[in-house]
Amino acid sequence: MLPVNYKLESRDGCARAGVISTPHGDIETPVFMPVGTIATVKTLSQEELKNLDAQIILGNTYHLFLRPGMEVMEAAGGLHKFMNWNRPILTDSGGFQVFSLGHIRKITEEGVEFTSHLDGRKIFMRPEDSIAIQNIIGSDIMMVFDECPSGDSKYDYVKKSLNMTTRWAKRCVESHSRKNEQGLFAIVQGGVFEDLREESLNQLKELDEYISGYAIGGLSVGESKEDMYKILEFIGPKLPENKPHYLMGVGEPLDMLEAVENGIDMMDCVHPTRLGRHGAVFTKDGRIIIKNKRFEKAFEPIDHGCECWVCQNYTKAYIRHLFKAQESLGQRLASYHNLHFLMQLMREARVAIQKGKFQEFKKEFLSRYLAEK
Amino acid sequence: MLPVNYKLESRDGCARAGVISTPHGDIETPVFMPVGTIATVKTLSQEELKNLDAQIILGNTYHLFLRPGMEVMEAAGGLHKFMNWNRPILTDSGGFQVFSLGHIRKITEEGVEFTSHLDGRKIFMRPEDSIAIQNIIGSDIMMVFDECPSGDSKYDYVKKSLNMTTRWAKRCVESHSRKNEQGLFAIVQGGVFEDLREESLNQLKELDEYISGYAIGGLSVGESKEDMYKILEFIGPKLPENKPHYLMGVGEPLDMLEAVENGIDMMDCVHPTRLGRHGAVFTKDGRIIIKNKRFEKAFEPIDHGCECWVCQNYTKAYIRHLFKAQESLGQRLASYHNLHFLMQLMREARVAIQKGKFQEFKKEFLSRYLAEK
Repeated sequence: MLPVNYKLESRDGCARAGVISTPHGDIETPVFMPVGTIATVKTLSQEELKNLDAQIILGNTYHLFLRPGMEVMEAAGGLHKFMNWNRPILTDSGGFQVFSLGHIRKITEEGVEFTSHLDGRKIFMRPEDSIAIQNIIGSDIMMVFDECPSGDSKYDYVKKSLNMTTRWAKRCVESHSRKNEQGLFAIVQGGVFEDLREESLNQLKELDEYISGYAIGGLSVGESKEDMYKILEFIGPKLPENKPHYLMGVGEPLDMLEAVENGIDMMDCVHPTRLGRHGAVFTKDGRIIIKNKRFEKAFEPIDHGCECWVCQNYTKAYIRHLFKAQESLGQRLASYHNLHFLMQLMREARVAIQKGKFQEFKKEFLSRYLAEK
Repeated sequence: MLPVNYKLESRDGCARAGVISTPHGDIETPVFMPVGTIATVKTLSQEELKNLDAQIILGNTYHLFLRPGMEVMEAAGGLHKFMNWNRPILTDSGGFQVFSLGHIRKITEEGVEFTSHLDGRKIFMRPEDSIAIQNIIGSDIMMVFDECPSGDSKYDYVKKSLNMTTRWAKRCVESHSRKNEQGLFAIVQGGVFEDLREESLNQLKELDEYISGYAIGGLSVGESKEDMYKILEFIGPKLPENKPHYLMGVGEPLDMLEAVENGIDMMDCVHPTRLGRHGAVFTKDGRIIIKNKRFEKAFEPIDHGCECWVCQNYTKAYIRHLFKAQESLGQRLASYHNLHFLMQLMREARVAIQKGKFQEFKKEFLSRYLAEK
């Protein structure tokens, strides 16, 4: 039996409510996963993540490989111990960062040669290296090393690329040394082309007995929203029912609800914390810029009715002041609230699915969130 | 009756254990007070300050006057409400910052003309202005507006200055519009000259019925440690017994214990949080630089035996990593631990005084803290 499993609890159209079991505990889905790039979800402590009821967080293999490095990670006994987080962790493969941050030198069948964005040193990463790193990190859910073509890539390139991604996935499965302790997710590629998405999925399904879940990669990477939703609607419902479905890199309310509607269980994005650090916060009536002059004397919470720690204790006027005075508490309060907002959205979506009222919930939420102001 | 009062509980030599009562609650002394310059103790939330059992925090009048400004402060209903802190607050008079941060244009009997360090606008601050601002802030303990000459000032200048500081103190007393709600502390000046210190104290004692406490200003402003301790020993024991004694701007363990030994009840300094933000942390064996390479695999708390949240949950190796990766959680963890360290030192000093063992406590603490490593 695989170390990570999915139990479907209820279904409403294609939308699913379920539970993912992992070596560090269960995850109720659909779920939004905060991103803890370099062993920290920016500005927050692990205790705050627990107060937020974060069920799982992400770590970035590429960043952790560079800092603190695998010698320290191994000595620490893995990422859970290193950062004092005893709930589930998911790590990406490093592929996405290699392609977006690294200065790529060469992509071959063997792997990718790139230079570090920190110190320019030359690194060669093969699928086997990514898996070895993730085995040291000890994440509950590992991702296969994939090539992630940009959103405007041509059909022929995407086709060639997805075939290599499948071959790399096989190599990842083969080199995975802790099969009983860490689940491995495959990544469906294929760009904005439906037939290539299907081809990618069918190839990966041949590895199904070794695969704990299926992710959709290569969306939210520069393609149009129209293309993104088209692919989501096409491929989401085709993902194997008995495994978790993970849409990578999505963290806007509208996108998240579209994803859930199409059978997605898991999502992640740096969006809520990055926005928060820049002073943009979610409210049920859309996003606001907290630094705005109009909030100078707004002695009220960011979002009326929000039950998060920040909204229970601090006002827009105070948080605005912290941003104007460049005090780091402001970034923390905004990040905390934003994460609560997205995680709460998924908790409410879950309840709505269980009640068979997901469509009503989605419509009601969006009618306020997207209303012209 | 004054709104702030002191009750002496026990005495050990000149060292005192007591309780200060204020409109927002009692303060057990001796006490170290974290500095919340611009309505935030840098990097920390108000909930964290409560977890640290901070009994009182400081606000800086000069900074709050510039940001958020008194219009917002008044609309908020004062600093307690603005920042959501329902325990005691002490505000300085703004004088020290005017002299250290502002670009001074002119000091006259009437007040000080200076330009803001933020936007260069010209501001004239009289003692009455400082009091009016502090009345709006609504601090439990206000400070008189004083001139604070630098540590190398000449005798004649200091003498002239302290006389003006006394006249300013009278004007502060007269203009204080919330005498029943906010206590006002006088500030003994006189530089490094014993006779001038005594003269300053004697002049201020004439205002005793309006004065809730006595502070020693103008120490830790560039004079030698020898001079500082000489003045502390001279003037500390002379401060009126029935009022709190406050040494301004001190936050190094050795200085703090010297202060307590000479009858000081209250101390404040940005030191612990500023050091923390730069990666220096207190341990019972002296200060360490957490970024140091030797802590790369130090999977142990900053200070063995420390009961603070940080030491219970995070390792030196992890905190070092956060500093190396420039993640703000590192600054927060270091600041939190440092504040705990100094506040705990004062709590332990208090117990030692109550047991009549302050000298033993001081000697034992310093023998480890100052030991050659």
